[in-house]
Amino acid sequence: MTEPGPATEGNAPSKNALKKAAKDAEKAKKKEAARQRELAERQKREAEDAADVSANDYGELPLIGSAEFKPTGEKRIKLSEVASYADQTVTLRCWVENARVQSAKLAFLNLRQELETVQAVVAASESLSKQMVKFAGNISTESLLVVTGLVKKTPEPVNSATVKDYEIHIKRVFIEAKAEVPLPLQVEDAERPLPSEATGEEENDEESGHPLVTLNTRLNNRTIDLRAKINNAIFTIKGGVCALFQEFLGSKGFTLIHSPKLLGAPSEGGANVFEVKYFDRQAYLAQSPQFYKQMLIASRFQRVMEIGPVFRAENSNTARHLTEFTGLDLEMEFQEDYHEVMSLLEELMLFIFAGLQTRYGRETELVRSRYHVEPFALPAAGSVPRITFAEGIAMLREAGEELNDYDDLSTPQEKLLGKLVLQKYGSDFYTLDQFPLAIRPFYTMPSAASPKLSNSYDMFMRGQEILSGAQRIHSTRLLQEKMRAFDPPIDPEGAAVKDYVDCFRYGCPPHAGGGFGLERIVCFWLGLPNIRLTSLFPRDPQRVMP
Amino acid sequence: MTEPGPATEGNAPSKNALKKAAKDAEKAKKKEAARQRELAERQKREAEDAADVSANDYGELPLIGSAEFKPTGEKRIKLSEVASYADQTVTLRCWVENARVQSAKLAFLNLRQELETVQAVVAASESLSKQMVKFAGNISTESLLVVTGLVKKTPEPVNSATVKDYEIHIKRVFIEAKAEVPLPLQVEDAERPLPSEATGEEENDEESGHPLVTLNTRLNNRTIDLRAKINNAIFTIKGGVCALFQEFLGSKGFTLIHSPKLLGAPSEGGANVFEVKYFDRQAYLAQSPQFYKQMLIASRFQRVMEIGPVFRAENSNTARHLTEFTGLDLEMEFQEDYHEVMSLLEELMLFIFAGLQTRYGRETELVRSRYHVEPFALPAAGSVPRITFAEGIAMLREAGEELNDYDDLSTPQEKLLGKLVLQKYGSDFYTLDQFPLAIRPFYTMPSAASPKLSNSYDMFMRGQEILSGAQRIHSTRLLQEKMRAFDPPIDPEGAAVKDYVDCFRYGCPPHAGGGFGLERIVCFWLGLPNIRLTSLFPRDPQRVMP
Repeated sequence: MTEPGPATEGNAPSKNALKKAAKDAEKAKKKEAARQRELAERQKREAEDAADVSANDYGELPLIGSAEFKPTGEKRIKLSEVASYADQTVTLRCWVENARVQSAKLAFLNLRQELETVQAVVAASESLSKQMVKFAGNISTESLLVVTGLVKKTPEPVNSATVKDYEIHIKRVFIEAKAEVPLPLQVEDAERPLPSEATGEEENDEESGHPLVTLNTRLNNRTIDLRAKINNAIFTIKGGVCALFQEFLGSKGFTLIHSPKLLGAPSEGGANVFEVKYFDRQAYLAQSPQFYKQMLIASRFQRVMEIGPVFRAENSNTARHLTEFTGLDLEMEFQEDYHEVMSLLEELMLFIFAGLQTRYGRETELVRSRYHVEPFALPAAGSVPRITFAEGIAMLREAGEELNDYDDLSTPQEKLLGKLVLQKYGSDFYTLDQFPLAIRPFYTMPSAASPKLSNSYDMFMRGQEILSGAQRIHSTRLLQEKMRAFDPPIDPEGAAVKDYVDCFRYGCPPHAGGGFGLERIVCFWLGLPNIRLTSLFPRDPQRVMP
Repeated sequence: MTEPGPATEGNAPSKNALKKAAKDAEKAKKKEAARQRELAERQKREAEDAADVSANDYGELPLIGSAEFKPTGEKRIKLSEVASYADQTVTLRCWVENARVQSAKLAFLNLRQELETVQAVVAASESLSKQMVKFAGNISTESLLVVTGLVKKTPEPVNSATVKDYEIHIKRVFIEAKAEVPLPLQVEDAERPLPSEATGEEENDEESGHPLVTLNTRLNNRTIDLRAKINNAIFTIKGGVCALFQEFLGSKGFTLIHSPKLLGAPSEGGANVFEVKYFDRQAYLAQSPQFYKQMLIASRFQRVMEIGPVFRAENSNTARHLTEFTGLDLEMEFQEDYHEVMSLLEELMLFIFAGLQTRYGRETELVRSRYHVEPFALPAAGSVPRITFAEGIAMLREAGEELNDYDDLSTPQEKLLGKLVLQKYGSDFYTLDQFPLAIRPFYTMPSAASPKLSNSYDMFMRGQEILSGAQRIHSTRLLQEKMRAFDPPIDPEGAAVKDYVDCFRYGCPPHAGGGFGLERIVCFWLGLPNIRLTSLFPRDPQRVMP
């Protein structure tokens, strides 16, 4: 059985067929009208395009370095200098913080270069087409541009930009490298602080109501994250600390050294060391340049400094541990008293602090303001508080802490002591001297004052350790004795230590030194909540990418 | 049966017995005389000792830092300043190059501090005992001293010392750290050049007839070896190159960065990379900061520099390869033409050469004189020879070499080209530009001039490569294309490269850069025969200790 078909009435057109024909005719009419409109629009567009007075003033540049790109040789200015070009036409490379079309005749762009931002205006006129306005207002965020425009004083300050008194009236705008859409992370989100560690979840900024992006999201998109001004500032400061470190120590006669990072045997006990497959044998990554810088003192280098990576295979997932960080190390002979070295270390840090204030004041303020951090209280000129470990213990006890004379301090106790020192001495930076011998490395010189103490010291910023240092034993005999008596004992004849132990047999001067964690100096100077913020591509037990 | 005894004559003493008694008496007399003499001598010695006017002026100091050591607070001078203390009494720390007793009343010491040596005289007088002369003249070589003495003009120049016009008339001499005897290597032997590579065996110096110590012996006793002035000079220069590199680039707005050395995946192909056990997974040591410095350019850092270790698991046992060396890296955006970067690199090297001449002229001369090396021919001001690879090929062909247009140069061809360039342009430093694309890394920008060429360059000193650099591809699309077409192809989605490839999606400026081998700059500046001489503790496939 088949279903009956629709009724048909011989050859006469059915009602339905008539309806269909009428519809078709109407469709064709509409189609023709649309075609006409489209044609008219196209002609209009073509006419407009032909009349686009700005046709050569905007667009995308061909890839620089390719055959299509023709250099202009045009002078390009720095955005930071823009104020000195008032009423002049300038060209500069910059990138788009954001772009918006205000109307068919007006678009605004926020342009950035380094830490500077400026407002740019694209206004249609006889010499600037609406097409160009549309193009400019629709450029994707983070695209790289080459812009030419007239620098004009603004009628009133532009609060959204760092350059408040000038804006750029764009004459030409070319995209040099277009940013894909969407960005995996918004740079403006990267400008805001981390969410509090307490939750670890995404949360909103109390002030702005905007989302606070987690550290993981930022680090997974680090090349976008690093574009944030706050990050630019952090790493400008970090490079600055190195420069200041070298400048000061260079002026004091220190030789910059490069000690090996690949070691044939694990030094300093062998715990927390990364193993490397070295051809057909095993090697290890240096946990510090300690042995080498001392061996160089034995080689009569007198004063050495090193800036280099330090590797710690410690499974610590805290806000202040990294598996790879930058060590600022130094070691020097002294004449009669290891306090000579401590004085130099204190002077060095005061020099660095002063340099950070004068040369990197803007960057410092930018970062601290985002995290609402107190200024760093500097000691009165030339008087870094230097307190003995025993005094520190006494201050902590007075504050209610229970601890024994030779106990190591816990992190909370260190932070508390930092607060007590700040109250008493008005300084966020201080030195703790004469640590108990038992809690220091085996090569630490025992104290002349008591065999239970040692000629060793730590330095603190905001109550957190930035340096550990000491006078080292420079006599092979004493070193061997201490190694054998150490807990656990260390064999002075062992392959890992023999070259080190033996280097003191041939007339080694008394010496002391220390190692700073560069990231810690930056972190505590700025008051950042996590050490990872001070490493370009941080490494921890969970992260070794990107 | 018993043997008959000697004949006896009743109680009367025998002849023999009489003889014996006489002998015994004589013996006793002699013994008594000896005892008397000994007593007299001892009394004399004791008297002399008691009268040792110098008893408090010489001896061994207790270990500094121990309870027994009492600081004096005495000012100590630098040996380099000694001429300004003529006719004054000075105190200084120095060490013994050699000491010799000339007579019971006179001893000489050659004392050293840094690169300076001075002659010291210990002459017995009413106020300086013969015991002190004996003590001083017998101090073991390399012992560390604290010496007090009168600075006196010498009647004629002392040729054996660097301080020729002054000597020190010692008043007090204390051993601060005694050197054990014998030394495993004589420092004076370490001052002489290496034996020629041809033999590799110990051979004698043609000039002095003294043994030339092999590199292995030196490196096995590196902390003694490094005491040689030649080594002190080499590493002063090495630190100086770093300082000059940073000084110049710092003034040009470069940010000092620290890229990670631990990588989650082997970059750049995965060959010659060291594997690291990273907790429960695998990591790799960075073969260069290449990807990271480019990622930072994509992060808008504009200009970055890095000084850090570079690890190459290459089983090359040559005089110019190390498995760990120091990379001087830089990367920068440019405006329109990668030659902007080449010009900056050339300017940088001219700045470094000028700095080496003015600040480290003495060290340079010291080292070159030992190895009989020609001075380094510097290009005329501002005109570093910059020749294209094609020109280089043409010069080599003219000199009789057979090679094709796109062949890579062999090491001997590079050296020959260096000679040809020196002849033609009078410079030991030059740049080779526009290398064939096929022999450069996949991320190299192809040339606008020809698809078979690339915007890449090497720099040479004395005909040996010190830098390799290029404009890099800053477009993800082009990079992916080139990676897929590379031989062997590289997957742009691979874990090792994905973050890198993706960083160019969001508006990366055109950029170029390069990486210097610090040790090579030092090696070729000084004309040393082996790169290991420029590494404090060199690493090669055979050596990872000390």
